[in-house]
Amino acid sequence: MKIICIGSGNVATHMAGAFKKKGHDLIQVWSRDADHAEALASSLGAKVVADLGEIDLNADLYLIAIKDDAISSVAHALGEVSGLVVHTSGATSIAELDRFKSHGVLYPLQTFSKAKEVDFKDIPLCIEAVDADSLNKLRTIAAELSKLVYEVDSDKRKILHLSAVFACNFVNHLYELGAQVLRSHDLDFEMLRPLIMETAVKVQTEMPASVQTGPAVRDDEQTILKHLELLESSPHLKEIYQTLSESIKNSN
Amino acid sequence: MKIICIGSGNVATHMAGAFKKKGHDLIQVWSRDADHAEALASSLGAKVVADLGEIDLNADLYLIAIKDDAISSVAHALGEVSGLVVHTSGATSIAELDRFKSHGVLYPLQTFSKAKEVDFKDIPLCIEAVDADSLNKLRTIAAELSKLVYEVDSDKRKILHLSAVFACNFVNHLYELGAQVLRSHDLDFEMLRPLIMETAVKVQTEMPASVQTGPAVRDDEQTILKHLELLESSPHLKEIYQTLSESIKNSN
Repeated sequence: MKIICIGSGNVATHMAGAFKKKGHDLIQVWSRDADHAEALASSLGAKVVADLGEIDLNADLYLIAIKDDAISSVAHALGEVSGLVVHTSGATSIAELDRFKSHGVLYPLQTFSKAKEVDFKDIPLCIEAVDADSLNKLRTIAAELSKLVYEVDSDKRKILHLSAVFACNFVNHLYELGAQVLRSHDLDFEMLRPLIMETAVKVQTEMPASVQTGPAVRDDEQTILKHLELLESSPHLKEIYQTLSESIKNSN
Repeated sequence: MKIICIGSGNVATHMAGAFKKKGHDLIQVWSRDADHAEALASSLGAKVVADLGEIDLNADLYLIAIKDDAISSVAHALGEVSGLVVHTSGATSIAELDRFKSHGVLYPLQTFSKAKEVDFKDIPLCIEAVDADSLNKLRTIAAELSKLVYEVDSDKRKILHLSAVFACNFVNHLYELGAQVLRSHDLDFEMLRPLIMETAVKVQTEMPASVQTGPAVRDDEQTILKHLELLESSPHLKEIYQTLSESIKNSN
């Protein structure tokens, strides 16, 4: 397949790289950020295009992996392409691409960092397409990259994206709050890392509710009060501690 | 070493099992819960004692792994033992054991489930002892079980325990909230599992603040508003979403 990559962020970089590895031909890269575009294009053996008007109209796949609020304007600046046009956004409706005959969504439910390699075959890919033809194409494309392909419509994809905010973005922030607590007492975040891993490993086979531990789930008010005392000088952490402890108690 | 295990919960089970594996002699088990005591004792080849007064006074190590608020009363019911007495609690001061000449703390910074094996060598063990002799003993004992041994006083251990509530207990609860969001729309928690793993893997080498992703860290108000709309019928989830999003924004 001839593929054009629009965007040069984490998702664009990892997904275009995964296609390249599968032997596909990445022919052009466009990005708002010229330096990033240059770096990605050179790693893919593709050409940089500075203007969306220069994009080849005869590629097989147009991969739009850019910020959600830019998808609409970029879609409107693209010419009359004949290939399949997809965006990779969890929170954006498929309808944003409806000026293209063949279009869809290829949403990877994963968190990417530029520096870190990921194995695409273990990443859930959520696909949606405007018609049966596009869906067949997209199904084949997705199955090449990952063994976890789900058909998910735009409404459910938004829910998935929202659940990921809880289970990934907020979780990472709680790691950070844990690190803050340690830092304020000259303790090293390193000490928490094995616990963080095990907490994630546990729910790979169990449901989280069944492996909940800690003072809130066992109604250990004495420990909760001691913790709130320790947080007396950090009203912000105290508020989060109280909110989440209440939530755990109410889930019982 | 002759070891006596007081308690039969997750920590007692895993730690006594780890000592057994290292070839030590688990001679007695006491627990408030007679059935649990029986099960643990039989797996360790130890005897159950029904009454704390029957505990052998000549063992080398007394492992008190019970609920925090029971440590004090159990310690007072124990006879005049000559060996090293330790508790395994993160939130409890070493002073609770000060009626014993040789005493200390052996706190594993990890989450345990009865069903799941853990490799003790990767578990941070935080040790504290009343005097140099006890500390030397405890250092040797801890180093047999784990390659990660830290000397941590009672004040710092309480901080570690508090940080673990953020990075483990609250994190697991956020997994559960993610699962709730999915369940309400007939989506499978299975889809979130790879993302949960990767989120934990990332911070094994990076600091969480440097790998924070999601709408709040990039000030994507449009997505945040869409998410709050989706949560309109769950005021409880909405409150947590707002509290944690604000916290992420303020950490920037």
